[in-house]
Amino acid sequence: MTSKLHIFDPVTDTEIRTTAKLLKDRYGESRLHFIQIDRLDPPKKQALQYLDIERHGHGTLPYIPRRTYAYFYLDDKMPLYKAIVNVSDRRIVASQETPEGTVGPLLPDDVAELEVAVMKHPVVLAEIAKLKLDSVSYDHPRLGKIGYEVVCEPWMYGTDSPHDKIPMIQAYMYMKLAHPEANHYSIPLRFSPVFEYLTHKFVRMDYLPAGADEKFVQDTLPYAPLGTVEYHPEVIEDTSVRENLKPLIISQPEGASFTVDGSKITWQGWEFRVATNVREGFALYDVFFKGRSLFYRVALNEMTVPYGDGRPPFHRKQAFDLGDCGFGNTANSLALGCHCLGVVKYLDTRRADNKGNPVLIPSTICMHEQDYGLLYVHKNYRTDHTVTTRRREFVIQTIATVANYEYIVNLIFDQAGAITVQVRATGILSTMPNDEGNVTDFSTIVGPGVTAPFHQHLLSFRFDTRIDGDNNTVVYDDYVPMEENLAINKYNVGFRQERTIMEKSGFVDQSPFTNRTYKVINENSINPVTLKPVGYKFEMPAKQMIIASPASYNVKRATYATKQLWVTKYKDDQLYAAGEFTNQSQVDSGLSVWANGEDSVRNTDTVVWATLALTHPPVTEQFPVMTSDFLQFLVTPASFFTKNPALDVPLANNNFNKSVYYEDAQKAAGCPSSSSSAGSCCKSNV
Amino acid sequence: MTSKLHIFDPVTDTEIRTTAKLLKDRYGESRLHFIQIDRLDPPKKQALQYLDIERHGHGTLPYIPRRTYAYFYLDDKMPLYKAIVNVSDRRIVASQETPEGTVGPLLPDDVAELEVAVMKHPVVLAEIAKLKLDSVSYDHPRLGKIGYEVVCEPWMYGTDSPHDKIPMIQAYMYMKLAHPEANHYSIPLRFSPVFEYLTHKFVRMDYLPAGADEKFVQDTLPYAPLGTVEYHPEVIEDTSVRENLKPLIISQPEGASFTVDGSKITWQGWEFRVATNVREGFALYDVFFKGRSLFYRVALNEMTVPYGDGRPPFHRKQAFDLGDCGFGNTANSLALGCHCLGVVKYLDTRRADNKGNPVLIPSTICMHEQDYGLLYVHKNYRTDHTVTTRRREFVIQTIATVANYEYIVNLIFDQAGAITVQVRATGILSTMPNDEGNVTDFSTIVGPGVTAPFHQHLLSFRFDTRIDGDNNTVVYDDYVPMEENLAINKYNVGFRQERTIMEKSGFVDQSPFTNRTYKVINENSINPVTLKPVGYKFEMPAKQMIIASPASYNVKRATYATKQLWVTKYKDDQLYAAGEFTNQSQVDSGLSVWANGEDSVRNTDTVVWATLALTHPPVTEQFPVMTSDFLQFLVTPASFFTKNPALDVPLANNNFNKSVYYEDAQKAAGCPSSSSSAGSCCKSNV
Repeated sequence: MTSKLHIFDPVTDTEIRTTAKLLKDRYGESRLHFIQIDRLDPPKKQALQYLDIERHGHGTLPYIPRRTYAYFYLDDKMPLYKAIVNVSDRRIVASQETPEGTVGPLLPDDVAELEVAVMKHPVVLAEIAKLKLDSVSYDHPRLGKIGYEVVCEPWMYGTDSPHDKIPMIQAYMYMKLAHPEANHYSIPLRFSPVFEYLTHKFVRMDYLPAGADEKFVQDTLPYAPLGTVEYHPEVIEDTSVRENLKPLIISQPEGASFTVDGSKITWQGWEFRVATNVREGFALYDVFFKGRSLFYRVALNEMTVPYGDGRPPFHRKQAFDLGDCGFGNTANSLALGCHCLGVVKYLDTRRADNKGNPVLIPSTICMHEQDYGLLYVHKNYRTDHTVTTRRREFVIQTIATVANYEYIVNLIFDQAGAITVQVRATGILSTMPNDEGNVTDFSTIVGPGVTAPFHQHLLSFRFDTRIDGDNNTVVYDDYVPMEENLAINKYNVGFRQERTIMEKSGFVDQSPFTNRTYKVINENSINPVTLKPVGYKFEMPAKQMIIASPASYNVKRATYATKQLWVTKYKDDQLYAAGEFTNQSQVDSGLSVWANGEDSVRNTDTVVWATLALTHPPVTEQFPVMTSDFLQFLVTPASFFTKNPALDVPLANNNFNKSVYYEDAQKAAGCPSSSSSAGSCCKSNV
Repeated sequence: MTSKLHIFDPVTDTEIRTTAKLLKDRYGESRLHFIQIDRLDPPKKQALQYLDIERHGHGTLPYIPRRTYAYFYLDDKMPLYKAIVNVSDRRIVASQETPEGTVGPLLPDDVAELEVAVMKHPVVLAEIAKLKLDSVSYDHPRLGKIGYEVVCEPWMYGTDSPHDKIPMIQAYMYMKLAHPEANHYSIPLRFSPVFEYLTHKFVRMDYLPAGADEKFVQDTLPYAPLGTVEYHPEVIEDTSVRENLKPLIISQPEGASFTVDGSKITWQGWEFRVATNVREGFALYDVFFKGRSLFYRVALNEMTVPYGDGRPPFHRKQAFDLGDCGFGNTANSLALGCHCLGVVKYLDTRRADNKGNPVLIPSTICMHEQDYGLLYVHKNYRTDHTVTTRRREFVIQTIATVANYEYIVNLIFDQAGAITVQVRATGILSTMPNDEGNVTDFSTIVGPGVTAPFHQHLLSFRFDTRIDGDNNTVVYDDYVPMEENLAINKYNVGFRQERTIMEKSGFVDQSPFTNRTYKVINENSINPVTLKPVGYKFEMPAKQMIIASPASYNVKRATYATKQLWVTKYKDDQLYAAGEFTNQSQVDSGLSVWANGEDSVRNTDTVVWATLALTHPPVTEQFPVMTSDFLQFLVTPASFFTKNPALDVPLANNNFNKSVYYEDAQKAAGCPSSSSSAGSCCKSNV
């Protein structure tokens, strides 16, 4: 059954069921509490042989059994187990306890069950009773008299002590108008119970500070309504909808320019496979452009979101959204004409529930083309003739909802060999209660009684490079003034490139004022034009890295977030920047271990880890829902080709693009017609 | 005739003619050599009164006469004159010599005449004769046997001495295949004559180094063809056109969402005027969003392009593309379905020729809407309901061709009050001759016998701010760790904002590692939610500024390029960062004078100058034509509104957007139909 699958195809329902069945057979069905089941990449050495034969067609494809991993608890107790299963041959390769104190990630089903449990717990009910919600209501202009209700939002517990080594949940509590779409982030409550994740056992009640210092009030008081800030059209009070947004329709009458064959995508010289997974959302494999290899594997592999509010218990707010939750687990089902326009191809994600049953999350990836202005232009002023090409892009998009926040991950391919890695942060700010008039320098008041603390987003993108072959070298180039008063620099205007080669695994410091540029080169492939090695560059914006003290758990757990670029020597299973297990982790077991300064990384199988960082002090425009904040970097050819690889892109012309003059369109729009042909509706009877 | 014009409308043909006529009457027609005639902004104090009455409708609009300025020489001799003319009342307000040694900008007509003159000059013809082009030809696969011809490309002369104070031209010489669209940048020649600009008098012959040092060979040798790198479809040898690029049609059946009324644009809450001019390309005036003022005037005001090759005479390659030439003078005429898609509104530019006659450059600005993905998204995971809005953008685009390079300037407006200032650098690299095998650390070989030197682009954008009123303050915010082990920072994870207020005119140093953010605030307008002043922020990427030595002319002439952000107190006529006259200038007479550290800039009429910088070491992918390199920064509301100002944007839905599934589209595309409705052609008989 699995034999027809490609080695990089995502996990199937059958594979999830096989994994669960084998483990149930071993441990007993009733004992198992699954946390995660997904496909495991094949050993790279075998995979490269497979890909080589697949591409060049010589010989028979080797048999590489498909493998899965599973995280699970037995009897809802520590330790966490990890199994590796050969699902092709239906056998457990290994299944064992993880190291003492390892806490597994959260599973959405578990969190949903916990929400229910928290809301039923007598201690919580007693606290809610003190709010006396029966006696308050709000006179909504459209919904009429409406009451309030309490919402529980479980958070990863984080770490502040070496002792918290059982899975726990910090339940932040909110209130909202009693409408399903009301915005609870607008009314954060001042108590926050802590529960054990597996047993649902109440641990303690935390009370939240709401003033300039760390003090809090333990007495929950009757709720005195202050008003809410709503975003949902059904609840928002000012129902005026912006006028004059006319349709802008993107149609592709001849279909898409890309082709999809299982997980394999081809578009404008690009070839790669896209495979969804529960942790990363998706990964690209075997990326080629114009017949030359670029990357073995590319994925967003981790994101940590540390908060800068030091008042306990907020100091523990540090999410690892991939390691603690998973961008596949939390992926949105995307809808036609909503998240992507034009001709859209969707891919699904499969995850396992806590019983080991497969769960389908449909349409978690949308892929489409877009026009993004001009690719290149030159006007020969002597003839007045212009060469103009439009920039067509291919976009792979996924959106993860991690409670309040949405992260839109876009990988954008152009026609000239470049990839734009773009993340749009949107959704709702995580909020905290705030005393009236309490203005601080570590949070922004966003509504009555509610403030949004400063925080950071630090995302790690892993590029398993294969630039023109298997052996690569990472270098960085600085641009520095030439020595003054040399014969070739008599007027002191000269500058030159200074190249540094990474010999050992480690990191590169940022240096924007020398225009430091990171490149992956292939020393075995010399560009016949430049007479230098071919390469690809990583154009990353200089950014502030994690701000917390190096002595803090925030940094110990996320060493990767201290630097923008890391380089390691490839090893199987080194996939996640902060390590495999991040939930309630004490230390970063990823790059802090692997980028050891010892492995030689020159002219070998290297991996580049790029940290994309955003320091985020909220503004009011980001509440109650946040217009997308853009984070992005570019990966572009740097003398990889001998010349512009997009010279074969057809020139732009209006027979193809069918645009119209404003004057004609406005006239046309005035005529009573359902014709879809703008600019001609008054002229045509068809 | 001019009385119906708005104070910000661009210059008219009549106004150009009036200006020229008045000056001809004064000086005598035959003596005048015009260099530039354009509209002059009204004094701001008067303009603000006008705008206030215009907006609020109380009282009669004051009479503000329209004014022009003119630069001209008499009898093709220095000095340069500058006149100011009241064209409404048809009188010369002032006309006088500019300070001694002031050189005016270049005029395209003059440069074209110079090209002809250079190519006819006996000294140049003698040098060309030595190439013995009669005896060489190339066997082009499509064009057949084809000869070579020489091209002259005049460059601004730059400066290396305090003595070069008459207008001069450095003529870089190239060869090309004898086809009008062949790429001469592929064959730079090794001699470069210098001419006087006004008299066409030969000054001297410069010879160009082509090796690792400053030495050159004075003997021009017979040309031995090495091959060329071509970009034009008529000349390129590999004629294969990329397949499978299917049409992606952007249609707006109900017309555009923006309205145009003369120079006034309104779109999605935005209101402003757009006026073309010869120097800046265009400027925005009187910018409002959702009824609140943001800017009095916004424009790209200067760009310098210093080259990093110190070998004489290349050290003089430092263009000031706006001050020396003008982005309006060099603006492209944009074409429907080529440079902009959808429903497109065009604006024209008017300039004067050297006789003072108006010249129309049609369609130099295109304005249109585009979809750029998602504006905001939130999924309520409890109900699984999603709020999703598409990001519609309004784009103002112009493209200037400055000899080899194209600069695409885009001002992009979103629906939430943000402006993206985006420049795409494209066109062709400026190239130099190169000895075979000569690899340097200050240029990149891009073809046989040709290398492209490292250089920089440093653009200045001027924002005359009017954030919620006339008096503004510039501040910058840094994000720094909280002091360790405080009660509110017991776990050392906290960080906070540190604000610095600009009290005096000057500059701000970059500080990306504290996430330094520049803001313009209005201390008189307190946001009722945050309890802090409202503001707008400038989100600028940290970049290397001008690299040349502070002692070099490159820096003395472009002090503005040493810093990313400057603040001055508003004064009429302070519009251009490097000063009014840049061609062959000796010093920066702009920000180096105006940002004097003395003027109080707090809570007053302030101007912000943002330098957008790119260090550009070429790569082979950028030759023979360069895929657009993006430079951009954002100007976004920072607690200016009380909440997200885009909550009134309608939710996305496919009744509006009409997208289709990949599978349906590919099926549909296969059916023989001319229907424009993708995805339904097989199902419908209409």
